[in-house]
Amino acid sequence: MAMLKDVKILDLTRLLPGPYCTWILSKLGADVIKVENPNMGDYSRGSPLYELINVGKKSLTLNLKKNSGKKILLDLVSQSDVLVEGFRPGVIDKLGLGYDVLKEHNKRIIVCSISGYGQTGPYRDIAGHDINYISISGLLGINRTSESPMLPALQIGDLGGGFGALSILANLYRREIDGEGEYIDVSMTDVVGSLFNIAYQGLLAETFSGGLLPCCNIYKTKDEKFVSIGAIEAKFWNNFCISIGRDDLIKAQYDSSAMEEIKRIFSEKTREEWIKMFKEVDATLTPVYSPEEVFSDPQVMSRKVFDQGKKLLNFPVKFLRISTKDDRKAPNLGENTSEILKGLGYGEDEIKNLRIEKVV
Amino acid sequence: MAMLKDVKILDLTRLLPGPYCTWILSKLGADVIKVENPNMGDYSRGSPLYELINVGKKSLTLNLKKNSGKKILLDLVSQSDVLVEGFRPGVIDKLGLGYDVLKEHNKRIIVCSISGYGQTGPYRDIAGHDINYISISGLLGINRTSESPMLPALQIGDLGGGFGALSILANLYRREIDGEGEYIDVSMTDVVGSLFNIAYQGLLAETFSGGLLPCCNIYKTKDEKFVSIGAIEAKFWNNFCISIGRDDLIKAQYDSSAMEEIKRIFSEKTREEWIKMFKEVDATLTPVYSPEEVFSDPQVMSRKVFDQGKKLLNFPVKFLRISTKDDRKAPNLGENTSEILKGLGYGEDEIKNLRIEKVV
Repeated sequence: MAMLKDVKILDLTRLLPGPYCTWILSKLGADVIKVENPNMGDYSRGSPLYELINVGKKSLTLNLKKNSGKKILLDLVSQSDVLVEGFRPGVIDKLGLGYDVLKEHNKRIIVCSISGYGQTGPYRDIAGHDINYISISGLLGINRTSESPMLPALQIGDLGGGFGALSILANLYRREIDGEGEYIDVSMTDVVGSLFNIAYQGLLAETFSGGLLPCCNIYKTKDEKFVSIGAIEAKFWNNFCISIGRDDLIKAQYDSSAMEEIKRIFSEKTREEWIKMFKEVDATLTPVYSPEEVFSDPQVMSRKVFDQGKKLLNFPVKFLRISTKDDRKAPNLGENTSEILKGLGYGEDEIKNLRIEKVV
Repeated sequence: MAMLKDVKILDLTRLLPGPYCTWILSKLGADVIKVENPNMGDYSRGSPLYELINVGKKSLTLNLKKNSGKKILLDLVSQSDVLVEGFRPGVIDKLGLGYDVLKEHNKRIIVCSISGYGQTGPYRDIAGHDINYISISGLLGINRTSESPMLPALQIGDLGGGFGALSILANLYRREIDGEGEYIDVSMTDVVGSLFNIAYQGLLAETFSGGLLPCCNIYKTKDEKFVSIGAIEAKFWNNFCISIGRDDLIKAQYDSSAMEEIKRIFSEKTREEWIKMFKEVDATLTPVYSPEEVFSDPQVMSRKVFDQGKKLLNFPVKFLRISTKDDRKAPNLGENTSEILKGLGYGEDEIKNLRIEKVV
């Protein structure tokens, strides 16, 4: 069986943070229904990202400002385990669909709100995006060159939505034991703040300071590519120095004054020559791949990190007994509206009327 | 009740990836025992990072190479829900403590292995660190200046251990239903590969391309500090342009040829002046904080992201009914050895002998 077999999730979110949260749960076997505005569904539709994190979900269009739309949502809530929403704090309450209302319809419902700054505090009503959340939580300030903070390649704030999935899982487990629902308040700024402090405390501790040390760094090769080395332990650095015939550098493992010499050494061979030379040596030397190279790396292919061809994402963790294989597609806007409404007992004519009234 | 009340976890890991995984579970209420080598426990002890991610755990020293040490571990396994290990693939099997052996002692045990490249594939036996996993999985290749890939501030590979916690939670839930244990294989490279592809597909889609656009960027202020703006939506950018009296720039939201002019505008006021000016305007303008500033931000303080003073980490998600507050400390090496052995029925003399024989 799947891990989340028969777990029903209503997803009122769009773009990256909420859909990433429910992507995780969907891959673990939950049934996820995207509840989308009939006029404008998830804005990310059309981008490759949409396909990536919406595979396997269903789409129901629903106008939550109309009473008939609210009624349908509440009918679904009474049959669901989890509702995830990503509106600005307070919006769902104004719609008359706050946690207090939802739990009247289903006392076991687990509601997860994902927002930029959280449901409380002085910034709760302020709009923002990933770049803002990582500014406030300190990550952007430490992700920098000598001149300027630099936007990380990863939208780590948005991906903080993953902590929503983790918190939902913890509460699904607990609910099996005590039968109670819960309200979960995920602030992307809080999540990044937590990650920031791990990085920052690591930077403060000399032993973890990467980046500026000969033994843990990125080096340019003869062919203008790059290799990385992570030889934090003496044995790996010794192996490296001995292999290049430079035992004299063993003592320079953490000595940044040796950096220029080591840069020079790396510039003498191509990336491929370096990788070939260290294929059988335990010295933590790896190629720094350009994006397209990743997809053909033998380990990445062997582990099926990506669904080759479509470049979709498989669930990034493997289980011995349980498969997370998933060949489903991302839904078109409203693709499953009729099917879901029929499941609630609506007839063809009623559904037609709901369409005419622009409820669905 | 805590979410993971009475969930017992044995943690055979060290440094960041495994301890981060079990930190999450500990914060959610699980009992975590660090099982450490008596001669050399978790190497990170002494660094601020150790305190941060080991609060609330217990420490048992145990020599797993001795039969009497293995016996104690197996006795604990029979009473535990989860075992997490982070040795190089194959090591735990060589110790005679692989999943097959563990499940003979407890068929409900959930075992999670966290490794750099995974338990399978051509790189399984290769040593590495965070820098290597992010090289292979593509993240380092896209986290770059025009000159070179740049090590991200966040050890995102190591933090991939968090997916171990998520997978353990999913299996704890499932186990309540089907009663079966599971073996979980977390590869940090796989996890980062998955995150990389989300970032990469986002980069490929114009609408998500941050960093190079006037409306979503980092700007230097008059006092050599920085602000960030995330005005991806027209309304926020319009608010920005109107507020600075430059309606002519409204059309330049996504026009990088306007960048120099916007840089010049930002250089005319201090960071504080900018923030004050936009305090009441919905334009997604935020200060880029230096690390120490984060701890005194009003939102961060209001949300109690950090345990102020000690700068420890609170669990980054809030729950309505359930508290994750935790005032416990990180354990000294072997601090709980006697207590744990007594719980297994060992007497004072037996414990003394185990110490003399260097088993614990």
